[in-house]
Parts: sequence; C-alpha cells; structure tokens
Amino acid sequence: MNSDADRIKLRVIRAGIDTYQQPVVYMHRDCEVCRSEGFAALTRVSMRIDHRELIATLNVVVSDLLPHDAVALSEAAWNAIQPEPDAMATFHHPEPPRSAGALRAKVFGQRLEESDYLALMQDTVQQRLSDIELAAFVTACAGERLDHGETTALTRAMIAVGDRLDWGEGPVLDKHCVGGLPGNRTTPIIVAIVAALGYRIPKTSSRAITSPAGTADTMEVMAPVELGLAAMRRVVEREGGCVVWGGNVRLSPADDVLIRVERPLDFDSDGQLVASILSKKVAAGSNHVLIDMPVGPTAKVRSAAAADSLTGRLAGTAAALGLRIAVNRTDGRQPVGYGIGPALEAMDVLKVLRGDADAPADLRERAIALTGELLDLVPGNVIGRGQALAEQTLVSGRAFAKFMAICNAQGGFTEPQPARFRADVSSQRGGVVVAIDNRRLAKVAKLAGAPVSPAAGLVSRLRIGDRVNAGEPVFSVHAQSKGELEYALDYARSCAIFDLQDIGS
Amino acid sequence: MNSDADRIKLRVIRAGIDTYQQPVVYMHRDCEVCRSEGFAALTRVSMRIDHRELIATLNVVVSDLLPHDAVALSEAAWNAIQPEPDAMATFHHPEPPRSAGALRAKVFGQRLEESDYLALMQDTVQQRLSDIELAAFVTACAGERLDHGETTALTRAMIAVGDRLDWGEGPVLDKHCVGGLPGNRTTPIIVAIVAALGYRIPKTSSRAITSPAGTADTMEVMAPVELGLAAMRRVVEREGGCVVWGGNVRLSPADDVLIRVERPLDFDSDGQLVASILSKKVAAGSNHVLIDMPVGPTAKVRSAAAADSLTGRLAGTAAALGLRIAVNRTDGRQPVGYGIGPALEAMDVLKVLRGDADAPADLRERAIALTGELLDLVPGNVIGRGQALAEQTLVSGRAFAKFMAICNAQGGFTEPQPARFRADVSSQRGGVVVAIDNRRLAKVAKLAGAPVSPAAGLVSRLRIGDRVNAGEPVFSVHAQSKGELEYALDYARSCAIFDLQDIGS
Repeated sequence: MNSDADRIKLRVIRAGIDTYQQPVVYMHRDCEVCRSEGFAALTRVSMRIDHRELIATLNVVVSDLLPHDAVALSEAAWNAIQPEPDAMATFHHPEPPRSAGALRAKVFGQRLEESDYLALMQDTVQQRLSDIELAAFVTACAGERLDHGETTALTRAMIAVGDRLDWGEGPVLDKHCVGGLPGNRTTPIIVAIVAALGYRIPKTSSRAITSPAGTADTMEVMAPVELGLAAMRRVVEREGGCVVWGGNVRLSPADDVLIRVERPLDFDSDGQLVASILSKKVAAGSNHVLIDMPVGPTAKVRSAAAADSLTGRLAGTAAALGLRIAVNRTDGRQPVGYGIGPALEAMDVLKVLRGDADAPADLRERAIALTGELLDLVPGNVIGRGQALAEQTLVSGRAFAKFMAICNAQGGFTEPQPARFRADVSSQRGGVVVAIDNRRLAKVAKLAGAPVSPAAGLVSRLRIGDRVNAGEPVFSVHAQSKGELEYALDYARSCAIFDLQDIGS
Repeated sequence: MNSDADRIKLRVIRAGIDTYQQPVVYMHRDCEVCRSEGFAALTRVSMRIDHRELIATLNVVVSDLLPHDAVALSEAAWNAIQPEPDAMATFHHPEPPRSAGALRAKVFGQRLEESDYLALMQDTVQQRLSDIELAAFVTACAGERLDHGETTALTRAMIAVGDRLDWGEGPVLDKHCVGGLPGNRTTPIIVAIVAALGYRIPKTSSRAITSPAGTADTMEVMAPVELGLAAMRRVVEREGGCVVWGGNVRLSPADDVLIRVERPLDFDSDGQLVASILSKKVAAGSNHVLIDMPVGPTAKVRSAAAADSLTGRLAGTAAALGLRIAVNRTDGRQPVGYGIGPALEAMDVLKVLRGDADAPADLRERAIALTGELLDLVPGNVIGRGQALAEQTLVSGRAFAKFMAICNAQGGFTEPQPARFRADVSSQRGGVVVAIDNRRLAKVAKLAGAPVSPAAGLVSRLRIGDRVNAGEPVFSVHAQSKGELEYALDYARSCAIFDLQDIGS
C-alpha cells in the first residue's frame, strides 16, 4: 500500500454547503486524486488529516468552481474533522465496513448475534455506513424481524458504543413517552416535581423525529438544552434533575445516527424503538423508569394488541438489563394541553407549573398521575402515595421553583414568545366531537413550520365530547411566515380533523 | 393554495456538481424561498419550470457562493429538467408520494397488490422516492419477502411505467445471464449468430452493477451503445439484432432507478432479480428467452437449492406473462475467457468471432451451446439441431460479418485498446488449481479500475485442474493509473484467489 507520504495531498477548504448530517466532500473531476484512485460521484472515500479519519460521500465538481488541488467539505464533514487552517488531506478507498456481512445477513432475514450488532453500531457511529445502508438496516429490523434476544443485543450494542453515566448508589429515576400524541409535554413537569422531592432524574430528550415538537425542542424555548455530558452532570448534581437534548451527550449516539434515516422514512419499528429508549436510559445511569404509552387509533401505538407486543418487548429487554420499569397506558385518542408546537407547548407547561387558573387540566392531571406512578416504583415508597405527593409538590410552588432553578443551571430561563402570524380555522358545520385525528393535527402544525420555527404550531381547546357550532373557530394556526401559514391553512381546510356527530333535534 | 404567479421565482443556474443520478438543488440559506417555505437541508422539494416538474433533494448553501435569488442544479437535476437560458423556477412542498402507504406496508411485512406496485414504480421513475425510501423498498422485498404473485405484479408494474416495443408477428429471441461469473461475455457472440440466421434479437444489456464489467460496458468498447429507442429499432430492423445499453431506451426504467440503490448495497434479491430480467424482456418485445444461470460457490447463484428457487420464480412469472423461457445452468466455478474488464473481454469476444487460433475455447463452446438451446426453443425448429447450426454459422464467418454490420449500424466499430500499465502476479507456491474465487478475481479487476476505466482489469488463463509452479505468473493486472495498479496488486497479493493442492511426490 502507498504510504501517506507518497500520496497526493489536497488543500482543505470549506464548501459552505449544508447536507444535514451526512458528510460530503467535493473534488474536481480533473483532480489528480480522483483520477489516480478512480473516484466517481457517490464513491465513499476515507479522508485523512494527520491521524484523524473521516468517511464521506464524494460529489464531483465538473465546473471551474473548485480548483484541482483542493477538496471542499460540507458543513457536516467540516464539523466532524475540524481541520486546522491550511490543513492538507489524503484520500483512500475505505475498508469495507466490518459489519457489511452482518448487514447483508440481516437483510436476508437471518438472526444476528450480539457481536454482529456491536460491529453494526460501531460502524454506525463512525459514519462508516452510508444513509442507504442505514436505511437497509432499519428496514431489515422492522416489524417482527428482530426477536426479543436480538432487541436486547441491539440495546447493549447501542450502550457500548457511547458514554455512560454513573451516579453511584441509590435510585435514579427517569421517564419516557412512546410519543405520537401532540402536546403531551409532561416531562418538564415530572422532572421538576421529582427533583423537588430530592430524587435524581437525569433526563435526556430527543428533538422531533416525525412530530411537530420533541421535548428537547419544547424545553429549548425556555432554556438551553445543548449541554455536554460534563455540564449535564453538573446540573443534576446541583439541582437533582435536568431536561437536555440527548444528541449532544453521546449517550447512545448510534441512536441519533439511525434517527437520521428513520425521520425521512417516517417509521420506527418495535425493536428499534425499545433499543432506542432503553439504551438512552441505561447510558444515563437510570434504574427506575416509567414508560408513558398513549394508545389510540391515531397515536403511535394504535391498538391494545400493539401495546401488548411493545410492552412485552420493553419488559423483556429491561429485565435483561437490570432496569425496573412500569408501562403506563394512557388515553391516546386526542391531544393533551392546548398548544402543539415547541413554544405553544412550553406555554402550557409553564401554566401548569405556575398554577395558572387557565392551565390545561388534562396536561396537569396526566403529569401528576405519571409522577405518582414513577414515585411508587422506588423501593421503600408506599405504593399509591406517589400521586398525592406529586400534587402537593406542584400546588406548593416547589416544583415551579425547582424548574426555574434547573433552567438557570442549564444556562438561563427565557419566556416563550408568540408567533408573528396567526389565523383561525372554523368548523364547516355543527355537532359533537366524537374523534380527533392526531396525525392530521400534527401535520397542520408541521406545515405551519414546527419544529424548525419554534413559535409555529396550533392551539386547540376542543376535546372529544365538546359541542361546536358551524362557523365557530376550532383551532388557530400560528406561523412565522405567511407562506407557511397559508400552507397549513390550505391543508387544514382540505381534510377532516374533527369527526363531528350531528346533534339530534 | 398560492397560484404560481404569486410565488417567488429563482433564476436557474447550473451548479456543475455531479451527484450521480440523484437530482439535488442548491439554495442559499437566506433565500426567500427557503425562508417562506421553511425548507432545510435534505428537504424534498418540487421544482417547477413552466409546466415541467422535478422532485429533488435540497442542499443549503451557507456561504456567499450562491446569490440569494438563484437556485443551482446538480448535473442530474439539470439533465432531467433541461432548463432554457434565463429559466425561472418556483418551488413547492411535494405531495407525499402516493405510494408512501404501500411502502410502509411492505416494510412491515404485508403483501401488496398489483396496484400498490404500480404506484411504487410510478413514483420510482418520477423520482418521487428518495434513495433512502428506495433502499427501504429494496430491503423490504429481499429474501423471501416477495411471493410469486407479488413478483409477477412487480414485473408487470415495471413494464407498465416504461416504453414497450412491438415487432409484430413471429418469434423474437433474447437471452440473459444471471451474472456473477467474470468474463462470461457470450451475449455479443449469441446475438451475432442468431441475427446471422435471420431471427430478430433486440438485446438490451446493463452496465456493471457490482461486477467489473456489464455487457453494455464491454460492447461499448467496440461500438456505441447509448442508442435511443428509435435508433435501436432501426438497427434491429436493418440487421436483425443489436446490443445496446438498456438505460437509454426506457424499457423498464424503474429497474434502472432501483439499481442505483442496489449497487451500493451490493445485493439484489430473487424477486427483484426476476422482475428486473423479465420486465426488460417483455418491454423489448421478446417472446423466447434463454436464461444462462451459472451456479458455483462464488457465482451469484451459489447452490443447486438457490438455483431451484430462482428457476421456479422465473418460470412462474414468465408463464404468467406469456413468455417461453428455458433456464440453462452452467458451470459457475471459474471465470470464462481470459480477460476480466470491458476491453479485455471485448478482445476475447472478437477472437471467438474471428475464429482466432488463440480464442478462449470455454467462451466459444459456451456461446455455441447457449445459442443452440435458444434456437431449439423456437416452435418449428428441430430440437437438438440448434447447436450444430450455431457452430456452422460461427465457423463460416457469417456471425463475424453480422457482428461488424451490427456495430456499424450502432454507429461504427472500434478495436479495443490495451491499458497503459500492467504487472504480473505470481504464485507463492506450486500445486494444482482445485478452486478459483470469482469474487476476489472480480474485486482485483474493480480495484484496477474496471469498469470506469474500460481498459482496466486482469487476464488469467489458469483453470481448475491446471498445474502451476512457485514463482510462475497466475494473472496480469491491467490499469490506466499507477495508483489503481498498486491497489489491485496489494489486494491480489494479500488474499488467496486460487486454491492450490500440493502435488503428491
């Protein structure tokens, strides 16, 4: 093999092109590296600067935009390798990913061992697998194609390739919502109550994958969430709890990479879901976990059978990993709270914590019930007492004070701000609400700009059983641009979101 | 919905960036379209110029490279929409692909109907599915996940979304090799013999997917192969046969798109393979098809069981489509001919056609045997007579004359040229060859630059049963650059390609 000293070097420059998370490098068609290595568009290349290596996808420049002796890096490539000024790079054909055989075997339906999953997750975090290969892996694990043992093996592999927190002896609490229910933003409230009671709850949350807001997006409206692992630890040591974005702390970083392809595919399967949830919990050092699982025809978990299957898989893997968990099925037929979208949900959270008279009752009740169940999970606590304790902590204002202290420890509290544009959508006819399509509501909020525009989304107070008259507003759309407002309104008016039943005369 | 007149228009410019087949558009982060529509990196966007629409992936420019009022198009996007000078474009959120539900259902293991496959293939050829979605589809169909009925439905859908040739009454012949055997380049010889005998054989071939050369790559060394449908028809009407690249004639164009993701994944499954092969044949108007299926431990079809399963699927779908086919299993344990790589294989083909004393006997015999079987398939022909007829046509020089006439009709014949660099690889020890690793041989040829450099590849005359002494050359590597030569030699020397057995004393 040619030694690096013999190899042609290219000057490293910044392309100034954002290709999301996939590293791309640009070389001129007539550059000597392309010619001597036989590189072409979409070739995977290994770039080395000193002793750092990055695997990237090649795009070939055929115009005079780029000199022949330079390589331009996309933002993701630039940030991953962080070249010094005047850095020079060499290029190689990357070794085929060590996990290529395991990937192929899984695609053709074979069962994999823990060592296979470890190789796959190592290649995943080292960016050795392309988006196409990751999409094949995610698909090959979908449905019933991962058995329980494989789910546990995948979870362990995801833990192994990232960092792991250790809090010493004693209970460390956590909660997770399986998602799919717009506005169900109980996490900041639960963390505030639990931490106010003196327990540790090192909560990491995700940004939206396919929804209009993730908990990290909502929390970010009120406080910084992009803390590193050391900063996260300091917040929890000082205040007992935190709500930070999981993507910055390298707890199960493979999961963050897989989400890159799951997001555009708009699906995640049971096995991946369990591995995603539990790997984060174990890596965060948690040992008592409450899972909130909304069930409803348009929630993520749509039926009791689907909930049974997912619960079984969660319980099996949790037991294998030494986690105490409880799975709480909640009503997933309709949204929770008034707002859908990061800032609008943050406003609801603050109303509950502040004890505002206008606070959404459903969000408040749900947060209290879930906190109660989580407290009941801790050995030594009297089962059934948790809920009263939670409510008392909220009413006394101690939870709000703790929440402010956590926000300050994370970098400072900011009050959420309203969007620039808003417009009401009215009902075409009158009737009683018998069903609400969560997915369509979420789509309206996404078309309005959530979560990219944090202030965007919608506000609706209508619930199943409520009566509405023709011409009466059913929700208001909030957006930061007129184009997005129009888009959301067009869609909202074109489909049925609320299923109305005529009122008998 | 905003009418197009109200929409912000961007000036269309050419980015000069080759992203292979995936259309990419570049917009500045601060461009009004990005801001008003909420576009971000990797958003799928619908671009309209007059009444033409293209779905593309967005990359966001964050430097001053691109003005705020312009959109730059990658080569694939530019060639797909072919903008006039000074063209202006508008941008929209694309409708979700109509086949999204079917894709999701297949990913989760459901059986699909023909209408689902039709929607999937329509979205595939219209570029409405991203590479990630295509990778999910290909994976969801891998292994045994497509049943026979679904294979037929997918084949019909692939035919329906492309053009279809009609040759009127009478037999139209065709052949296809399942592939995986380096150097097995019988097609140009078979086409020449069959056409010399007065039959029609409108052969379309593919470029290499995962191999060092496809038939189209090899033929292109001798004559133009990128003919359109009308030009292909003229060649066949004049000479009876042709060997053109399938990618330019829109016969089953969905297959060409799927190959884009199958290539980097390095797998294609039985169902996809059958749909790929037979959709091309039906679209080409063929009704009598011989399938050459090499079977061997390192060929594409590795075992008799795998061959049985693929043959059953081919026969079932062919019957449903009204095709007469014969499947011929051939020895897939070792390469055919001397050369591996487009030009080196073309040299072998010409030696056989010219009746050269040094012509590779195995390639010649195989071409005659396969042509014989194909002729025997035609009603009215005496079964068993085909082979003698084929040999006679070859020996008489009529096949060579016909081949030259076909090359001329396709645009003119060119003699293949040798590569700039070559080096021998010698055996470390002596012995008798008992096995040859086709995959490793193919990899050496690919590392040497094939098929991107047509002259690159390797030449080996060693066959199973041959004796070799320590230090004796076993093959020579041919390359157009020193870097590639070194790469191929490094790999060739690092692994065992020929399995040698000691010669007893």
